[in-house]
Amino acid sequence: MAIFTHKQKDELELGFGSKNYKNPVRFLNKDGSVNVRRTGLGWINNTDIYHSLISASLLKLILLIISSYILINIFFAFVYYSIGASHFGGLEAETGSEFQKFMGLFFFSAQTITTLGYGHIYPIGNAASIAAAVESLLGLLSFALATGVLYGRFSRPKAHVLYSENILISPYKDGKGLMFRITNKKQYELIESEASVTMTITNPESNKREFLNLKLEIRHVNFMALSWTIVHHITEESPLYGLTQQQLAERDVEFIILIKAINDTYSQGVNSRHSYKAHELVENAKFKPLSPESTKRGTLKISVTDIHLYESLN
Amino acid sequence: MAIFTHKQKDELELGFGSKNYKNPVRFLNKDGSVNVRRTGLGWINNTDIYHSLISASLLKLILLIISSYILINIFFAFVYYSIGASHFGGLEAETGSEFQKFMGLFFFSAQTITTLGYGHIYPIGNAASIAAAVESLLGLLSFALATGVLYGRFSRPKAHVLYSENILISPYKDGKGLMFRITNKKQYELIESEASVTMTITNPESNKREFLNLKLEIRHVNFMALSWTIVHHITEESPLYGLTQQQLAERDVEFIILIKAINDTYSQGVNSRHSYKAHELVENAKFKPLSPESTKRGTLKISVTDIHLYESLN
Amino acid sequence: MAIFTHKQKDELELGFGSKNYKNPVRFLNKDGSVNVRRTGLGWINNTDIYHSLISASLLKLILLIISSYILINIFFAFVYYSIGASHFGGLEAETGSEFQKFMGLFFFSAQTITTLGYGHIYPIGNAASIAAAVESLLGLLSFALATGVLYGRFSRPKAHVLYSENILISPYKDGKGLMFRITNKKQYELIESEASVTMTITNPESNKREFLNLKLEIRHVNFMALSWTIVHHITEESPLYGLTQQQLAERDVEFIILIKAINDTYSQGVNSRHSYKAHELVENAKFKPLSPESTKRGTLKISVTDIHLYESLN
Amino acid sequence: MAIFTHKQKDELELGFGSKNYKNPVRFLNKDGSVNVRRTGLGWINNTDIYHSLISASLLKLILLIISSYILINIFFAFVYYSIGASHFGGLEAETGSEFQKFMGLFFFSAQTITTLGYGHIYPIGNAASIAAAVESLLGLLSFALATGVLYGRFSRPKAHVLYSENILISPYKDGKGLMFRITNKKQYELIESEASVTMTITNPESNKREFLNLKLEIRHVNFMALSWTIVHHITEESPLYGLTQQQLAERDVEFIILIKAINDTYSQGVNSRHSYKAHELVENAKFKPLSPESTKRGTLKISVTDIHLYESLN
Repeated sequence: MAIFTHKQKDELELGFGSKNYKNPVRFLNKDGSVNVRRTGLGWINNTDIYHSLISASLLKLILLIISSYILINIFFAFVYYSIGASHFGGLEAETGSEFQKFMGLFFFSAQTITTLGYGHIYPIGNAASIAAAVESLLGLLSFALATGVLYGRFSRPKAHVLYSENILISPYKDGKGLMFRITNKKQYELIESEASVTMTITNPESNKREFLNLKLEIRHVNFMALSWTIVHHITEESPLYGLTQQQLAERDVEFIILIKAINDTYSQGVNSRHSYKAHELVENAKFKPLSPESTKRGTLKISVTDIHLYESLN
Repeated sequence: MAIFTHKQKDELELGFGSKNYKNPVRFLNKDGSVNVRRTGLGWINNTDIYHSLISASLLKLILLIISSYILINIFFAFVYYSIGASHFGGLEAETGSEFQKFMGLFFFSAQTITTLGYGHIYPIGNAASIAAAVESLLGLLSFALATGVLYGRFSRPKAHVLYSENILISPYKDGKGLMFRITNKKQYELIESEASVTMTITNPESNKREFLNLKLEIRHVNFMALSWTIVHHITEESPLYGLTQQQLAERDVEFIILIKAINDTYSQGVNSRHSYKAHELVENAKFKPLSPESTKRGTLKISVTDIHLYESLN
Repeated sequence: MAIFTHKQKDELELGFGSKNYKNPVRFLNKDGSVNVRRTGLGWINNTDIYHSLISASLLKLILLIISSYILINIFFAFVYYSIGASHFGGLEAETGSEFQKFMGLFFFSAQTITTLGYGHIYPIGNAASIAAAVESLLGLLSFALATGVLYGRFSRPKAHVLYSENILISPYKDGKGLMFRITNKKQYELIESEASVTMTITNPESNKREFLNLKLEIRHVNFMALSWTIVHHITEESPLYGLTQQQLAERDVEFIILIKAINDTYSQGVNSRHSYKAHELVENAKFKPLSPESTKRGTLKISVTDIHLYESLN
Repeated sequence: MAIFTHKQKDELELGFGSKNYKNPVRFLNKDGSVNVRRTGLGWINNTDIYHSLISASLLKLILLIISSYILINIFFAFVYYSIGASHFGGLEAETGSEFQKFMGLFFFSAQTITTLGYGHIYPIGNAASIAAAVESLLGLLSFALATGVLYGRFSRPKAHVLYSENILISPYKDGKGLMFRITNKKQYELIESEASVTMTITNPESNKREFLNLKLEIRHVNFMALSWTIVHHITEESPLYGLTQQQLAERDVEFIILIKAINDTYSQGVNSRHSYKAHELVENAKFKPLSPESTKRGTLKISVTDIHLYESLN
């Protein structure tokens, strides 16, 4: 059953190897990240901290900043408290319990690390002054780092590509085509976009994963102004030819999409990846055309989520 | 009337589709931005905030910063006021009405968020101190963001290309040529510039938009030291051949210009776009040559606005 | 006298036009900047301020920062003085003349714009407090800008290419070669360097400038570890063939060098330019070989200025 | 003994020249840096300070920041002390010896340069105020620079490629292959990786170094998801053909590896280099296959250090 002995067998080296996996495997997650975890060098060496910070969710980053701020202030409050509350001028005035003294030193720490320095509490003597000098330096360096991370997050060129929820097999020319649609979610331009589609499938004979390139009708668009329907014509040369949806599911098919473009704001190349598994494939359906409205001021207006819409032809 | 059945029919995929629009449409605005508005995911998801901030006008950005500064200070003044004016040392000294107390807390807020911290007013007790600690952290993070946005704005590589106001049809070789001129507005260099010109026009038969590539005499210059006249020779192969200015206007022609170059200061690729509509086309005219003066110190001096000058040949 | 009717007449478009200039002209300055000044839109529009700041000399930048700091503080000292010295607590304590009050307000301004805020002088009342709040915001934004400019200056990828002082005509193979040497001044790597050499010369017949490409023996090196001698073989195809140094001088020859490389630290492309005029050409001489020493630790050590050394063969 | 007169003699220009070195030379250090030191222009001109700062070890950078902080504060403490302790309000209150006054001014300096400004010590009179104004400006500019350096360090795109400790000669097809393995140490993706391998070896006849390109079976992978074994087939065309390990050692062989890739986080090109000397070559051995585990959540998990593992076939 030599399914793959056809002409267009561009076996690709995607760096995943051709090992046989016992369980179904998704090589690319839906968000385009590669489904591999690297270990062996210890957490610190297998992690790029800056990368983690700029790609973490905004909520995580905010929580991290706030909790670091609290913990560092608690740490320095302990340092100051162990030096002795009497070495901090103005603190006595705020009287109170030992706990209240600790809180006063906690707030003094916050005023020091932010270089706020009201001065109603101030260090007296060398130990207290040295600790405060260290903390203010630490504060400045921390905020230098925070500036870098925030800038890195926001300035990182991204391709906000929206992919249609499904990949369709539609009538195309005299036969069929594998089709999905993409558009740009955001109000800036992606230019010189390029697409490539790789199919990975288990070879039923060797039981190994094969990676096959699918030829596209149009590989490149200058603008992605409205949307772009990417089409692979299922000719006799296509590795998809004659395979049913069920066969594709059994062989654990995955369509790996790579989009390259230039983000026009930053004039820099960006990448987007996506993958479809067999259950996201819809046979005998076609996408509904987008309907750009021409507004009064002559601007074309589209709703980007319309790229998901298709109609069944059964 | 098979106007477009000539040889050089490079139908291009610009991502605008080939839909028939009822009203005349301008695909590219004069400033080179694509005339499309994307909706459907809500404002927050269809907008790239960082992109908006770095490409907004400087005036807008300044107003945004000032109004945010005022609003945040008003907000914290309310927070402090609700905690109670008695929790702020030094405030009583400035006596006065409730409004004046509020103003005192407003200024205290400004001194806190900028980490100025004169200290003649200072928080007493946990609630006031916590609010101040939060505000100073917020201040530092906000100014970290502002640093990033300001840096992003100024460091973004741009191509300050000036386009001649008109696109001309001039005598060229034994026939005619479509010509426009560009130059670099600024005192830095654009190197390895490349141009492409696409004509989009309504096909009178199918009533659909067609996108056709216009072949250029010179596509690439190493320096754009003075100016560059970009020429399409209107031969029999040209899709413009035999079309009058009136026909071009009726068919809602648009010339879409893409310029790629390397900004020599940042060694980074930059893009510039422009478009001309039929009313900006001038038939039977030619550009006046630029007249670079050689200054005493041997420097060539040009006036960039001279690229607009042409003389009619009628 | 058809000197230029030979085969390798790659007439280049460098964007300088082919105008005849009355006086000798240097197209590229020795530092590689293009010798053109662009006017016509007013200073503000013909200048890229950020570009000027990051490419100005360090001394100029420091003077600019210091003088801005002084002027802004003088301005705000006037503002505070016109509000009235009595609105600034702690100022009276420092008593003295009106001038001394002004100086006190000048220093208060400096403590405000840097967000230092000792607080021994502090604003009383709305007018003084508002002015101080404005100044501290201005201070933060100014230092945000300064951070960006300083970062922009230092992070800008540069190619620190050192060019030999002279360009030689040396014996090469069975004939002669035009040669110059380059090296990397700095202790980081330039990889994948590429060179191109253009000769611009006045055509004695048409009296116009011509730009001709000179074919190089090796156009590309992977590393520029030690030095690189760039050679144009003066064959019969060469536009230099048969021209004497005096003829080259009379026709106002200029050799324009473009080097592209990748700065390995930033993984970014960089450019370097240089030009040689006739008086920098030395006939019948050859470069002395560099003599890299092998240090005890096995490192090769070179003196980069040795690339200037040549010996006359007369 | 014309070992190198075979067909695939791509002599490469790596910029190292072909000089004969008396002692064995390593052109690339193990960390991929080029083993060349450039002098002749003085330290300041042969060094790119920013480059040194962003590529120095983190420990060195921290020590540099802390020691600069201490030294600058000592310097300003001297300046303040020479102005006179009586010009600093609040200092007397902390009484004590001359040394203690100096320490007080040292801490005042620290509070000034960080713009902390508690204000319990404050300058009185022009000289002290001017010195403080200068120090606070210096502080802001220094921390602007520190922000830039820290951001530059962390945002610099790097390729964290791990190379197998040894390069093997393994059975391959019907003959032998030169093989080594690489993987990505970190939890982000390298895409579109490209490899090139150059062999440099002393020619026993001319006693000069030759640089020869080794042809690779696969030069390019789209993802480096797991690992990548780079193979040079030792055919009769190979410059390695018929050479024993001992001959390679005697001729001081070095295999120079260049990897180019795109760091997916920053969408920017990155480079990695490595070199193997003869003593790192293992004959008649083969790499053990990696064993990616499929975790419960369907993620493939590998230990990157497994790429070093091989088994001897003797």
